[in-house]
Amino acid sequence: MSMLGSLENVLPADIERRSMEIIESEWGDASHLTPLQRQIVKRVIHTTADFDYLGILKFSPTAVDDALYALRHNAVIVTDTQMALSGVSKPALKALGCEAVCFMSDPAVAASARENGTTRAAAAVDYAAQRYADGNVIFAVGNAPTALVRLYELISEGRLRPSLVVGTPVGFVNVVQSKRLIMSSGVPYIVSEGRKGGSTVAVAICNSLLYQLYDRATGNLL
Amino acid sequence: MSMLGSLENVLPADIERRSMEIIESEWGDASHLTPLQRQIVKRVIHTTADFDYLGILKFSPTAVDDALYALRHNAVIVTDTQMALSGVSKPALKALGCEAVCFMSDPAVAASARENGTTRAAAAVDYAAQRYADGNVIFAVGNAPTALVRLYELISEGRLRPSLVVGTPVGFVNVVQSKRLIMSSGVPYIVSEGRKGGSTVAVAICNSLLYQLYDRATGNLL
Repeated sequence: MSMLGSLENVLPADIERRSMEIIESEWGDASHLTPLQRQIVKRVIHTTADFDYLGILKFSPTAVDDALYALRHNAVIVTDTQMALSGVSKPALKALGCEAVCFMSDPAVAASARENGTTRAAAAVDYAAQRYADGNVIFAVGNAPTALVRLYELISEGRLRPSLVVGTPVGFVNVVQSKRLIMSSGVPYIVSEGRKGGSTVAVAICNSLLYQLYDRATGNLL
Repeated sequence: MSMLGSLENVLPADIERRSMEIIESEWGDASHLTPLQRQIVKRVIHTTADFDYLGILKFSPTAVDDALYALRHNAVIVTDTQMALSGVSKPALKALGCEAVCFMSDPAVAASARENGTTRAAAAVDYAAQRYADGNVIFAVGNAPTALVRLYELISEGRLRPSLVVGTPVGFVNVVQSKRLIMSSGVPYIVSEGRKGGSTVAVAICNSLLYQLYDRATGNLL
């Protein structure tokens, strides 16, 4: 079992702290980011091992402040996948009186998508927009560019004003464009410019925001 | 709304096919991969928009064959996160008589981790190993290197012989080493060499394997 000797000896409770230290020691110049933005980018790199995020993660100027305000006031986080929903920290949401929801598996959403020839992701945005028209809603879109496009349309038409859009869909068809649309929409955003992103990236951003307000070690609000 | 004019006009049902075409047109030389391995790598790139996976996704020689055989014979897929669990295609699993499980939230696992000073991920591997000692089990590890290390130990001690290990934990502490251990263990593996990976990568690999056997359009087995 000599191969086990190559392992670094780090206590379970210290693995994340050690990871963050390694990221800081390797990521070079992060001076374009505020301290809170830096926390978010660090968690995204921790989640992807991809240092590209230092350059491609874009924040509207007040996005972090707006997000923290929203999370302190019972925000609803709407995700575009069940995977993202299952990744957002439930203890943190609960402690803050927030919740996370996903409508992708709702039969009404599937029916509406079929009827209108759209994706389920776009139909799920419409569904959420109706449900939370005047609410405190954070959209966390880690998969479907069509969800971001539909958000842009509703925002442009004055029918929706999200507290924050986390826009990190990944892929090759309309992904780059959908992110540009959201960054031009006038709402607070945190977006991974270009093709990269994913559900785990959206979750890392949401959890990093939640962990500004919630201490995982004690379960207390900060 | 002129910005919407920049969008590529692709029908919802064609987005994935179009994405795969784009990947094939950009990824260069994929001749080191078999046709089935190529499907898997393509889905991982589709999931990450990261062409690095063309070089870093490593297959033991018979891994794909072994995996398809296992999935045709009622395999249990054990994931190391609830996120990964929620991403594996449930209709495909059901049609094949397979199932996916995750023990990370099991109170017995948390208690055992506390007692033994290990991570929950390592304790969850022990739990699964006891439960499925002689079973047809695929481990899909997209997060925790400590899960891979524990798998390596159990395999080395002759106490476990997984049908396949999908080893794509991501990060900075013992991630590279844990993957090397699994690649030296003698069991069939699909591993993302280096630091990169993640739950979405593990899910993409599992689903790509499932979609070799299950037609999503018709719901029929292939």
